[in-house]
Amino acid sequence: MRRSCTTRILLLVCALASIARAETGYDAWLRYEPIQAASVRALYDRLPATIVALDNSAVLSAAETEMLRGIRGMLGRTLRVAATVPSEDSIVLGTIASIQRVFPKLAERRGLTPDGFWLDSTALDGHNVLIVAGLNDRGVLYGVFALLRKLSLHERIDELDETESPIAPIRWVNEWDNLDGSIERGYAGRSIFFENNHVVPDLSRAGDYARLLASIGIDGCTVNNVNANPRILAADFLPQLARIADAFRPWGVRLSISVDFASPKTVGGLDTFDPLNARVANWWREKADEIYRAIPDFGGFVLKADSEGRVGPSVYGRTHADAADVLAQALRPHGGILIYRGFVYNHHMDWRDLKNDRARAAYDNFHSLDGKFDENAAVQIKYGPIDFQAREPVSPLFGALEHTNETIELQITQEYTGQQRHLCYLVPMWKEVLDFNLRVNDGDTPVKDIVAGRTFHRPLGGFVGVANVGRDPSWLGNELAMANLYGFGRLAWNPDLTARQITEEWTRSTFGNDANVVDTVMNLQLESWRAYEGYTGPLGLGTLTDILHSHYGPGIESAERNGWGQWIRADHEGIGMDRTVATGTGYIGQYPPQVAAMYESLATCPDNLLLFMHHVPYTHLLHSGKTVIQYVYDSHYEAAEEAQQFPEWWKTLRGRVDDQRYRDILAMLEYQAGHAIVWRDAICSWFLRVSGIPDAKGRAGHFPNRIEAESMQLNGYTVENVTPWEDASGGKAIECREPSKSCSAQFIFDGAPGWYDLDVQYFDVNTGAAEFKVYVGHQQVDYWTADAQLPATAPNGDSSTRRRISGLALRPKDEIRIEGIPNSGDTAAVDYVETVLRKAQ
Amino acid sequence: MRRSCTTRILLLVCALASIARAETGYDAWLRYEPIQAASVRALYDRLPATIVALDNSAVLSAAETEMLRGIRGMLGRTLRVAATVPSEDSIVLGTIASIQRVFPKLAERRGLTPDGFWLDSTALDGHNVLIVAGLNDRGVLYGVFALLRKLSLHERIDELDETESPIAPIRWVNEWDNLDGSIERGYAGRSIFFENNHVVPDLSRAGDYARLLASIGIDGCTVNNVNANPRILAADFLPQLARIADAFRPWGVRLSISVDFASPKTVGGLDTFDPLNARVANWWREKADEIYRAIPDFGGFVLKADSEGRVGPSVYGRTHADAADVLAQALRPHGGILIYRGFVYNHHMDWRDLKNDRARAAYDNFHSLDGKFDENAAVQIKYGPIDFQAREPVSPLFGALEHTNETIELQITQEYTGQQRHLCYLVPMWKEVLDFNLRVNDGDTPVKDIVAGRTFHRPLGGFVGVANVGRDPSWLGNELAMANLYGFGRLAWNPDLTARQITEEWTRSTFGNDANVVDTVMNLQLESWRAYEGYTGPLGLGTLTDILHSHYGPGIESAERNGWGQWIRADHEGIGMDRTVATGTGYIGQYPPQVAAMYESLATCPDNLLLFMHHVPYTHLLHSGKTVIQYVYDSHYEAAEEAQQFPEWWKTLRGRVDDQRYRDILAMLEYQAGHAIVWRDAICSWFLRVSGIPDAKGRAGHFPNRIEAESMQLNGYTVENVTPWEDASGGKAIECREPSKSCSAQFIFDGAPGWYDLDVQYFDVNTGAAEFKVYVGHQQVDYWTADAQLPATAPNGDSSTRRRISGLALRPKDEIRIEGIPNSGDTAAVDYVETVLRKAQ
Repeated sequence: MRRSCTTRILLLVCALASIARAETGYDAWLRYEPIQAASVRALYDRLPATIVALDNSAVLSAAETEMLRGIRGMLGRTLRVAATVPSEDSIVLGTIASIQRVFPKLAERRGLTPDGFWLDSTALDGHNVLIVAGLNDRGVLYGVFALLRKLSLHERIDELDETESPIAPIRWVNEWDNLDGSIERGYAGRSIFFENNHVVPDLSRAGDYARLLASIGIDGCTVNNVNANPRILAADFLPQLARIADAFRPWGVRLSISVDFASPKTVGGLDTFDPLNARVANWWREKADEIYRAIPDFGGFVLKADSEGRVGPSVYGRTHADAADVLAQALRPHGGILIYRGFVYNHHMDWRDLKNDRARAAYDNFHSLDGKFDENAAVQIKYGPIDFQAREPVSPLFGALEHTNETIELQITQEYTGQQRHLCYLVPMWKEVLDFNLRVNDGDTPVKDIVAGRTFHRPLGGFVGVANVGRDPSWLGNELAMANLYGFGRLAWNPDLTARQITEEWTRSTFGNDANVVDTVMNLQLESWRAYEGYTGPLGLGTLTDILHSHYGPGIESAERNGWGQWIRADHEGIGMDRTVATGTGYIGQYPPQVAAMYESLATCPDNLLLFMHHVPYTHLLHSGKTVIQYVYDSHYEAAEEAQQFPEWWKTLRGRVDDQRYRDILAMLEYQAGHAIVWRDAICSWFLRVSGIPDAKGRAGHFPNRIEAESMQLNGYTVENVTPWEDASGGKAIECREPSKSCSAQFIFDGAPGWYDLDVQYFDVNTGAAEFKVYVGHQQVDYWTADAQLPATAPNGDSSTRRRISGLALRPKDEIRIEGIPNSGDTAAVDYVETVLRKAQ
Repeated sequence: MRRSCTTRILLLVCALASIARAETGYDAWLRYEPIQAASVRALYDRLPATIVALDNSAVLSAAETEMLRGIRGMLGRTLRVAATVPSEDSIVLGTIASIQRVFPKLAERRGLTPDGFWLDSTALDGHNVLIVAGLNDRGVLYGVFALLRKLSLHERIDELDETESPIAPIRWVNEWDNLDGSIERGYAGRSIFFENNHVVPDLSRAGDYARLLASIGIDGCTVNNVNANPRILAADFLPQLARIADAFRPWGVRLSISVDFASPKTVGGLDTFDPLNARVANWWREKADEIYRAIPDFGGFVLKADSEGRVGPSVYGRTHADAADVLAQALRPHGGILIYRGFVYNHHMDWRDLKNDRARAAYDNFHSLDGKFDENAAVQIKYGPIDFQAREPVSPLFGALEHTNETIELQITQEYTGQQRHLCYLVPMWKEVLDFNLRVNDGDTPVKDIVAGRTFHRPLGGFVGVANVGRDPSWLGNELAMANLYGFGRLAWNPDLTARQITEEWTRSTFGNDANVVDTVMNLQLESWRAYEGYTGPLGLGTLTDILHSHYGPGIESAERNGWGQWIRADHEGIGMDRTVATGTGYIGQYPPQVAAMYESLATCPDNLLLFMHHVPYTHLLHSGKTVIQYVYDSHYEAAEEAQQFPEWWKTLRGRVDDQRYRDILAMLEYQAGHAIVWRDAICSWFLRVSGIPDAKGRAGHFPNRIEAESMQLNGYTVENVTPWEDASGGKAIECREPSKSCSAQFIFDGAPGWYDLDVQYFDVNTGAAEFKVYVGHQQVDYWTADAQLPATAPNGDSSTRRRISGLALRPKDEIRIEGIPNSGDTAAVDYVETVLRKAQ
């Protein structure tokens, strides 16, 4: 059925069929849930029954079909498709030019920019006409999605007269898909584009993805990893790419690709890839010509060069601008653009030199090249100077390129923010970034205006989100995480929307208009980033994850004493990177004066970036009046406690959300609640040991209801050290190493009689699937298989997982026994057990 | 996972796992949905945390595990399993004898009969004790289910002191499963017991079915078709049967089998099966001994003999009692029973003889044998004298056997009542049957008391339901139909329960306690039988279905002029079987005098059985004041209209019922609504033609918005007659006969402009799956595949199906075109199209 949905004629049928499907999240915010309430249906009573598209193109066709699909879904009506404007009420889709040709009496609409649209409910020749007009085809499509969004939100549409234009022309997503089908930093299954170094035969998901993108105004998609396989430019690969472009085209999404800078040599067979060599330039030109013959609306190239092991212009002593321009010039005749990634830094930096600072790299590498980039090139700048951390200051490079096009790179895939297993809704963070006023030239220069090209009057600019959707039915592997994709698109269209507005739109479209559902889901989303930051790395420390491997669980010292430059400079006295001009790396001096002054002074540097900017003793008093160390403890305990509430909030929606999504999301939130404790304990334990300063509230290092596995009576299990030590309670776990077939650990419960939750903290590695059984006395009370897909091959903070066995009646002297059955390198490792009294008896 | 659920130790785990499963109906009324409301949870705050089973048996084990499972599901608590009564509050399960041994101070409970139970919340030795006691093990199990039912219904359990005993010892289900895996009159997939002449390897479903049965007090299950394959008694089959008995045993369900009366010859190799032959008697004795060695709790035999082609004692000139007794005597030493089916009649009866009457058969065959049946034998009597029709009088045989054990045979599988595709809730009908007072010896003798053995003080008696569950996840193929299984069990336990009580129990347990859901589902159930009777065969005509083949769609004359004896004796003047003593077959004389007098007189015979008892002209005035013919028209139009409302009622539950069941049931009710129109039109058309008397309200034969397919402009389609003629509008359909690859039929719409539903009446046969496409002008508005599983190989009332295409905006002069693509003998046949104006424009 799915394949046939790519043909327009059957789309309606597919739309009907989707009603019978379980809710898997596949439809995301385009569910077009039937409107049941008579009072709401009445709002659309007078919606015209006939639709006409004045222009004939794949995009207009998609727009018309989408309109039919949305009205069919929400109102149960099939619009009549007319070839010309009928002599009755109608919905008319078309470009402004066509609309004005058909309705010459209509007042001209000014001010639209490309991709903008105009919605107008008006009376013409005695009939009500609902006009969806766009400056171009894509604008019409966006207008249709905007109109359908109004229905999803149960808004009136009978007195419309509004125009919208996007803030910037570049509204792209990057997909870090490898041609072998894997995805770098993808957390939702394998590539929807590639497998086994070919484009997949069935591109219906690519088309459905383009539809999702179009619905939020995204107009470009770079389909392969920025760490590009040169094969992407091979002659035999081009027809395959053209198939993806064909799938994208009806939705106005332009295909672009990441390229390897050495391609003239590796693919083209030249003896050089020097960007100033004429044969190299010619090779890129011919390659671009070849591409545009197959893909006339090709978007352009993305280039990552001289970064993290990628070759670049430095091989020939050339600049980034030289590299960018040779590609840009090849694309220019066809209207293509070149995006040059600004994520360039030395990852073999000497950590002993206190003046070294990775945060300086983007600015240092690019600011001197300002003005040297072609008009159809843009530098793509990550929002912060490090790498997609849960909290970073805005990259100073944004303010340093007045004569260069810029795009801001945001990360939808949650690389450092929980990898879609943790709810961490990033729109509030992105809003802070986009609204941050850099005060360039002492002016009013928020980041959003700079990257949109408004501040410095650049012809190009915009927004790039690294999405990394996969084959999981719900695209990102977690339905709630789809709000990040939605929010990225909406902000790229209009960064003045508030986080609340965007969240409410997404929630209502995704889960319906039940007030309890809307409130609860919005609260979850809007609280989640603050909580995630709070139980991972607050005060500007970065995420404190294992930066060398998984980028997932806690691994505090992984940042220290290596060339990657994500140092937090913690010792027994204090912590933080001194990035001041006065005594530190001088990074702060990269900001315009007003901002630099704010960060430079401890008196004005905000608490939430303090340790990014300054090195201070643990006893340093924050503006809040707390010491740094106490803030670390409080933040982790409070945020982890908030994460405990997430599944409880969600449970109030049982029966109000379809079961499939209810269960999927509950499982995610319960996992997150457990993993938040892993984070809390790892970081509090580490700070307690390193600082030697106790938690004033007596929590850190004290676990009154916890029984360490290593202190239990073991049968077959052995006690092993965990690395890093802070990732296990007491630094140790028990493991059942093969060839043991089964091991057990037991202890005598000595609490008061009552109803308890029993939390078993175990390690779920992805080499095998160990089994666990839990007994109270002779009674088995639980069984599970450790078969989660976590980025972990050993017991540590990536694999540490909580199993909550709730509703157990425990009595003093009860023997509690855990039996572990190892499997293929999964050693059924256990960290500890906690008994949580719920009700005394 | 499922198989491991049969072991007790893992049952809890399985119960937990089931929470993560989609709602398929598999759990039926044993869903143990979590209780969320704090006020309801508070009712169970003081439920003891510890459970102890005083007796050690498979049944007590199952009872204890069920208690854990139910409390785990509803309250999220895991009870502590203790080996002895603990020194704290506890739930104590055990037989009365064990309970009184442990708690000698406890007042003795009298009056329980076997399988009865006693629930008591009391204080003993300073602790609260919740006692679940049974006279036997099975009673304890039933007590547990009764207790858990109270929780499902959110009833208090803290002041319990109640006893219940079943009204009768025989509470069996019959399954008409053939050993090849097919099921006679089964509508929910293949057998859960047999496949390919063997018992299936995985009997977990058999165990789960026994659990469902136990939960409603069913204590026996006959696993094979009453039209028995002799192989059931083969020596190599017995160990396989023993495996089924093993799966049943923990749930107190005794296995029984149907046998072939010629088995001594066909299986045993004797040269006779004469019941009075000593070698035959010996063979049955030895066979019974052999069975009981393998299955110590074997229930007994069911015998259908001398009926519908089965051999029987008549071969040797012996009586039914002779046949019954030879088997009964073989079973008696082991406590087994013999059930002899009373469904014996001549199906080659001369229809021209107005004195012939199949309804007389059961009485005529058995009443003279009263007192000749052994004490461990019972005659199984269908509730009516014909065969499971939607309305029949009570069989007069019930009142005619004062010295013979009886069981009443009810049919859970909806053979003549819509085959689970129509909602037809039979509990209200069964209640009328069971409460019917036969006035035997002028006494107060309701059927329920007679069959329970109370009226005539019989040692045996009870209830048999023909269930025919299959491998469909929802057991009967339709979640709502499960209410019939539930209701049968509850009535067999206590026929004094009202239909409302039973329906409410089932609804709350199956769909939860949302008041809207409870009201709506109860209304649907309680209205459904009346509606089904109303649009099929009212006034006691029987179901008017095709009695020769499918027993499903309308086939009025299939009953006439053949040997099967279901004649309705309709001609141009009048209709009905004259069963009076005065002028008819004398059937009425089989009833005790008071009942006979009521039926004999037109003045007192109730309207709803009029045509069963009398032949009257169409113009006969009913007690209601209507003529017979007008009642037929009114009943069909009103009941079919009510069926149109069923899906509308159900739709109000969207979001209140889990999606899977919501969609499954909606699809069923929408199909039923369409098929109710097929019934209405077939019967009204037939009566209109045969009687020549028009519908006073002008409906019958007039279809103002209907366009017959045969009157459309056809391309490839040919006009064909449908048999019987009344099953198609106008008696004709169009068919696209192969080798045509595709045919089309079109017409010009000439109604007013507006929003319409377009109903396409087509025929969905089960030989292949034709495809249909519908166009309005050039616009395709629908597509479907005719792949339903209906009992039909030709276009007729079994296959006639409605496709509703809703929300179409139609305009005068619109060309509407149906394209049919035939497939494997499915000729994409179409009957007509109807346009239903929903809203003018």
